[in-house]
Amino acid sequence: MENFEFYRPTRYVFGKGLENETGKYLKESGFRKALIVYGGGSVVRSGLLQRVKSSLEKNGIGFEELGGVKPNPRADLVYEGIRICKEKSVDVMLAVGGGSVIDTAKAIALGVPYEGDFFDFYLKKATPKEALKTCVVLTIPAAGSEGSDSTVIEKEIDGKVVKNGYSSPLNVPLFSIMNPELTFTLPAYQTACGIVDMMAHIMERYFTNTTGVSVTDRTCEGLLQGIIENARIVIAEPDNYDARANIMWAGTLAHNNLCGVGREQDWATHHLEHQLSALYDVAHGAGLAVMFPAWMEYNLKHDVMRFAQFASRVFGCSMDFEDPERTAREGISALREFYKSIGMPLSFKDIGAKAEDIPLLLNMLGVDDENRTEGKFVTLHRSDCEQIYSIAARYGS
Amino acid sequence: MENFEFYRPTRYVFGKGLENETGKYLKESGFRKALIVYGGGSVVRSGLLQRVKSSLEKNGIGFEELGGVKPNPRADLVYEGIRICKEKSVDVMLAVGGGSVIDTAKAIALGVPYEGDFFDFYLKKATPKEALKTCVVLTIPAAGSEGSDSTVIEKEIDGKVVKNGYSSPLNVPLFSIMNPELTFTLPAYQTACGIVDMMAHIMERYFTNTTGVSVTDRTCEGLLQGIIENARIVIAEPDNYDARANIMWAGTLAHNNLCGVGREQDWATHHLEHQLSALYDVAHGAGLAVMFPAWMEYNLKHDVMRFAQFASRVFGCSMDFEDPERTAREGISALREFYKSIGMPLSFKDIGAKAEDIPLLLNMLGVDDENRTEGKFVTLHRSDCEQIYSIAARYGS
Repeated sequence: MENFEFYRPTRYVFGKGLENETGKYLKESGFRKALIVYGGGSVVRSGLLQRVKSSLEKNGIGFEELGGVKPNPRADLVYEGIRICKEKSVDVMLAVGGGSVIDTAKAIALGVPYEGDFFDFYLKKATPKEALKTCVVLTIPAAGSEGSDSTVIEKEIDGKVVKNGYSSPLNVPLFSIMNPELTFTLPAYQTACGIVDMMAHIMERYFTNTTGVSVTDRTCEGLLQGIIENARIVIAEPDNYDARANIMWAGTLAHNNLCGVGREQDWATHHLEHQLSALYDVAHGAGLAVMFPAWMEYNLKHDVMRFAQFASRVFGCSMDFEDPERTAREGISALREFYKSIGMPLSFKDIGAKAEDIPLLLNMLGVDDENRTEGKFVTLHRSDCEQIYSIAARYGS
Repeated sequence: MENFEFYRPTRYVFGKGLENETGKYLKESGFRKALIVYGGGSVVRSGLLQRVKSSLEKNGIGFEELGGVKPNPRADLVYEGIRICKEKSVDVMLAVGGGSVIDTAKAIALGVPYEGDFFDFYLKKATPKEALKTCVVLTIPAAGSEGSDSTVIEKEIDGKVVKNGYSSPLNVPLFSIMNPELTFTLPAYQTACGIVDMMAHIMERYFTNTTGVSVTDRTCEGLLQGIIENARIVIAEPDNYDARANIMWAGTLAHNNLCGVGREQDWATHHLEHQLSALYDVAHGAGLAVMFPAWMEYNLKHDVMRFAQFASRVFGCSMDFEDPERTAREGISALREFYKSIGMPLSFKDIGAKAEDIPLLLNMLGVDDENRTEGKFVTLHRSDCEQIYSIAARYGS
């Protein structure tokens, strides 16, 4: 086990009806004026935005609004948010939505006290010294951004879409209000995308070369099992409160680094997927369902026993002690079958991606066959990434 | 699932050699003078206390000292600590030790800004408005106090020993420095007691009537499995860093309420055990090894399937679908066998307790056959508690 720090001071307020207390929590924290960041019309149509606003008004918290955040959130809206905050003396960000909304709010929070371009942080050109606090009313369990220290934003630079993440303790939300009822109306496809995403957050940490981390392994496996059994329920019964609640809480634990302490983490698959999202505007979770099994197939021989452990403990595959690789491969099949059972794509074809775009995807990824690589579990050069994309392109064809 | 709040803002600093940075962390937090609370001679003999002091000196942090904390910590030393803090203008508590030391430090932290008797809080006669911060250098993984909001103290009142707990967000440590190397020299018996204690912290939460909490169930089961597999290693190889590290981290997760969110918790067994510790001065973990299987046996019929789930998922007992009760009982046997394998007592006789003391234990517990009960999973009246103590008294005789 490696040395680590674990510091996650977010206050999780979890349960029915608690979004109506948003103003109370902001007031208790001493804030005066929030920028409410949100996405599309559903937050408006469902009446959630109005209830949150009423709660703020009741508690004497002023607010400005910034709607229109889209999946794979863009820098444009971040600049707009920073401008509003500066002009209107906003002192706290209130994200009402899922990962894209929260990530946008975190980006604005970083940008407000900074003189330069907030995207400098995402390009690792600068390090922020301070940030506004971000608070959350979560509506989509998936990205885990409500409890994480990270944010991902896309920006077009010289005609090229750059999708980068930035992690810092400054990004950890102050509080996150989580009412599973708000997720009852999430379409099945979006629900499933969220489930794939949270599983990927665990698996990026699970596949590691660090030894002696069995307590965290067991935690990862338990969470994955819990997600899988509740996923089958929420897809069949979208208004099953307990199943929605289990999925929502699992999404937070999947990405607050409980599953990543003391170990090397991989994250190649996330980066491989980000290029698909950027190029085809495919949902992040859908892209991950295509890419994770491909990544596993390509890297299977690097540590057959770890893949067999995954197969055996997460999917209950019977361990073949004479041929552990068979068990390992069975685990990958079981994962694909599970993704399929919740309506997720499995191949390039399923998401409208094309094999002939692979060179472009590799350019966007920015890998080469020398120093610019991806991943830690296995260090992936351009030729490796090309083969992983090719596995995904070939699958099912 | 029930509504819940989860807020654990402790900064865990985990790994080799980090106790030498204690002064740096105190300084970063703006403190000037610590009361170093510790227990017996081992902290002195090992040189740990001196290294911590040097780290404080190097960072310009003043300190006072309060040694001599014993297992099942007493109020006397708390009063002494409060006096020192007030006289010497101490602004932070630094606990160097295990649960008893940390609980003592937390109690002092509550008492310093309070005009009355700190034990008022433990008797539920008063509620604290503020407290000093408690910081920790952990040496014994067991109580989970390094990440919990609770403290337990014993006080003699009118010739009777009262052992009570008090829980409050004020008690959550600011930071906890956790170096597994510091636990290499823990005797096997004490190591095993810690393991039983952390397992009990999970099991008090696991046996619940709340339904729809499967993600947390899976987390509990994963942690228990992780503890059991690493326990077998640390008893055989006391200086196995990774196994010690896994046990240490599991002890924190077992009691920071990760395993208890959104569900009713029991805690009867802890209270049944506290009386054994108070009457016979037996180690808390040893008492729990005697009492938990007895509690399980007595309550088995209340929810056979939950005990069968425990047996199947934690100990890998084969599920008897025709007779789940057989599986449930096999789980209790497996738990006892595990305790025995790490050198723990299983019966009254093993810890020098006597069946004829049961009426006294029940009086100390303060239960009757009307309103004064214990537990939530099953509400235990005096007659129930009597039978549970009797099971423990009869076992192995």
